[in-house]
Amino acid sequence: MDALQNGWFSELNDLWPGQCMSLKVTKVLHEERSKYQDIKVLETNNHGRALVLDGVIQLTESDEFSYQEMLAHVPVNSHPNPENVLVIGGGDGGVVRELTKNPAVKKITQCEIDDRVIEISKEYLPTLSEGFQSPKLTLHLGDGFKFMMEHEGEFDVIITDSSDPVGPAMSLFEKSYYERMKKALKPDGIICSQGECLWLHLNLIKEMQDFCKELFPVVDYCYCSVPTYPSGQIGFILCSLNPETNFNEPIRIFSDKELEDLSFKYL
Amino acid sequence: MDALQNGWFSELNDLWPGQCMSLKVTKVLHEERSKYQDIKVLETNNHGRALVLDGVIQLTESDEFSYQEMLAHVPVNSHPNPENVLVIGGGDGGVVRELTKNPAVKKITQCEIDDRVIEISKEYLPTLSEGFQSPKLTLHLGDGFKFMMEHEGEFDVIITDSSDPVGPAMSLFEKSYYERMKKALKPDGIICSQGECLWLHLNLIKEMQDFCKELFPVVDYCYCSVPTYPSGQIGFILCSLNPETNFNEPIRIFSDKELEDLSFKYL
Repeated sequence: MDALQNGWFSELNDLWPGQCMSLKVTKVLHEERSKYQDIKVLETNNHGRALVLDGVIQLTESDEFSYQEMLAHVPVNSHPNPENVLVIGGGDGGVVRELTKNPAVKKITQCEIDDRVIEISKEYLPTLSEGFQSPKLTLHLGDGFKFMMEHEGEFDVIITDSSDPVGPAMSLFEKSYYERMKKALKPDGIICSQGECLWLHLNLIKEMQDFCKELFPVVDYCYCSVPTYPSGQIGFILCSLNPETNFNEPIRIFSDKELEDLSFKYL
Repeated sequence: MDALQNGWFSELNDLWPGQCMSLKVTKVLHEERSKYQDIKVLETNNHGRALVLDGVIQLTESDEFSYQEMLAHVPVNSHPNPENVLVIGGGDGGVVRELTKNPAVKKITQCEIDDRVIEISKEYLPTLSEGFQSPKLTLHLGDGFKFMMEHEGEFDVIITDSSDPVGPAMSLFEKSYYERMKKALKPDGIICSQGECLWLHLNLIKEMQDFCKELFPVVDYCYCSVPTYPSGQIGFILCSLNPETNFNEPIRIFSDKELEDLSFKYL
């Protein structure tokens, strides 16, 4: 099976051996090799547009909302005062789109290493990249780890929206990265990171939960359903410096007006 | 994409247009056309053996447990005294396997229309078909609808483990089938049926929930994650004749010994 063959894109990868999701494609809208990765935008038959990095589906317009809503709102709604949020990665703009809708968030800083993902999302994925227009957002192009070294003790919430632990995103699954996030947080800060799939990467998740428990008093894990991700689900690693945090109970109850603005599809 | 090509089985189907799951296959262990359907057993590279009916993956050994555990134990553990359970379909034996392990279940009647599925499961899927050896089980070969016409007011719980609403299983998604199940239940009876996928069949699910609410005072829906099902999840329609039933709160708390016997992998 080749990645693009007979009108189907197939997501073959050693991270999920022996299984493969394919999407019917009508057109390759864009294809390039950036400094960091291979980037494709596909027009699919039934799933809207798809963003593919290094052969791996990052999102389709048909189901991206479950991932973006969970990654943004679960940590923010577990923090009593999540005014200042840092996003590492997330170059498609979807997580920022969700954060800008949350009335508790006052300031968003995003640090994305590959500006080409941002530019391509602005051109081909307007329902995601609309987040980049928010006056709440300060966009920083560069390495998230380095950025946090210069910004200790600044953030209420840090969200890591990364691709899988190969290539440019590898270091975002290591203990040193979590130590760095811990230092960039304010005293009661919370983090939420893309946490792979329970069906495929249980050992990695276990290992990450173990080192997180050395660093944070509260560590948890949740997941959501995303049909076009491998095995149909993806998880989130949640940690808090505040021993009182309970990730199972949202702190904020939204008004009807706020819910209308948030326009949740999954939550 | 053909169903079997270059060592991969691909699950193409109009029920999930424009998307396709493929599994790497080392060997076709069995293939036949029964009176009702095309039956295949595949040896896969990474997912154990797979049972395929009319081109649709019914289960793989690697992930069947989540579906079987939910379908069996959620309804049974919502009933105060689920002694007498009827299973419609479920010819692979997985649901019966789970029911036999639940100490609250005393008697299981299974009604499967296609005896070839049972025989093939006994030969190729021993970890599922072990349920057929249970002394609690009475196996009836034939049509579930007709069987229930002769057994009114008999069962505490009725579980429908069906394939998708095409071919032999079509009628199991209709109101007349739910009316029939209602009549076969004891006064406080509960039903649980395979309820398709929220991402793919929201209209069908909505329609079914609507007619269920005309028939039962309590109607609910839950789902679980199954990587090798289309879109990676499958749901369950839950109805109760007892207005006190709360499907969100299991009635029974298992002892450590019972939990050891139940050997849950998902729950």
